[in-house]
Amino acid sequence: MTPARSLLWVSAAFILLASLAPSHSNPRPIASAQHSSYAEIRAVYDRWKKAFEARDLDGIMALYAPGDAVVAYDIVPPLQYRGYAAYRQDYQSFLAQYVGAIRVEYRDLRILSSGDLGVINALERITGRLKSGERSDLWLRATSVMRKIDGKWLIVHDHISLPADLATGKAVFDLKP
Amino acid sequence: MTPARSLLWVSAAFILLASLAPSHSNPRPIASAQHSSYAEIRAVYDRWKKAFEARDLDGIMALYAPGDAVVAYDIVPPLQYRGYAAYRQDYQSFLAQYVGAIRVEYRDLRILSSGDLGVINALERITGRLKSGERSDLWLRATSVMRKIDGKWLIVHDHISLPADLATGKAVFDLKP
Repeated sequence: MTPARSLLWVSAAFILLASLAPSHSNPRPIASAQHSSYAEIRAVYDRWKKAFEARDLDGIMALYAPGDAVVAYDIVPPLQYRGYAAYRQDYQSFLAQYVGAIRVEYRDLRILSSGDLGVINALERITGRLKSGERSDLWLRATSVMRKIDGKWLIVHDHISLPADLATGKAVFDLKP
Repeated sequence: MTPARSLLWVSAAFILLASLAPSHSNPRPIASAQHSSYAEIRAVYDRWKKAFEARDLDGIMALYAPGDAVVAYDIVPPLQYRGYAAYRQDYQSFLAQYVGAIRVEYRDLRILSSGDLGVINALERITGRLKSGERSDLWLRATSVMRKIDGKWLIVHDHISLPADLATGKAVFDLKP
């Protein structure tokens, strides 16, 4: 389902909810809260895109929860990065491979949210020039989990990956959605 | 943070909440609901483990939301599996590579939950014998997102992966946590 169609379904569900509600209750604040959570969660990914494209490490890391809250499974080893400091180091190494701006594109992005928990998943294309001079163009899978902490959505879990070909043992770099 | 320590923190947070609450309100039902969500979400992974170890495809698929709700990023291509039927086919191909029982072990498992949304992430070790006769022993990263639909937690998103070595282009199969 495309994001546009998902949104349509969500909207339809709200209209249905509103029409079913007894007259003494008012479901609109709940619907509005949900709508605003979606927009806020989406805005985190938009801010991430902007910061990542500019290779702005501080801008990227401002979107992550501090201390031990972050557990990240990244494209590259080790299996996991535990905590803000370890993940920042990983980002720094990743960004250092590129020269100049990076371009990010999302496809099939989906947002789920309830209360103070949000999940966003998307296919993510990262294009840029490596230090070696080579042009890199990768489609990745990205899942991020966010918590609303003191009124602000912060990422507490990332899972970023490429599929692997189990027969050849190779990561598959040339897939397109 | 180990799951045991996380649980301790969660418990501490509940006790704090309870002590801060004004005397006319009763926060315990919320705390209990949260506790029971954690247990229910954990139970889905335990059922998944049992079904997967027995290579019971129907048992595995009973844990997934029907129709278009599931979007899965698996170890193997393509980039994504959209919908129950496509993901079932993927599971069938994966299980067909093995002979006899498979063994699953979780490490550093974490559960997040709010309302009708739950997230579980863990390192997952899958051990078994392949049809080729070779013994396979893999540590993977697993993230699953669940929705409580009609009182039942069902998985709507999976992200399962191995890290890749960007220098060699190989998926990294021999990592240990």
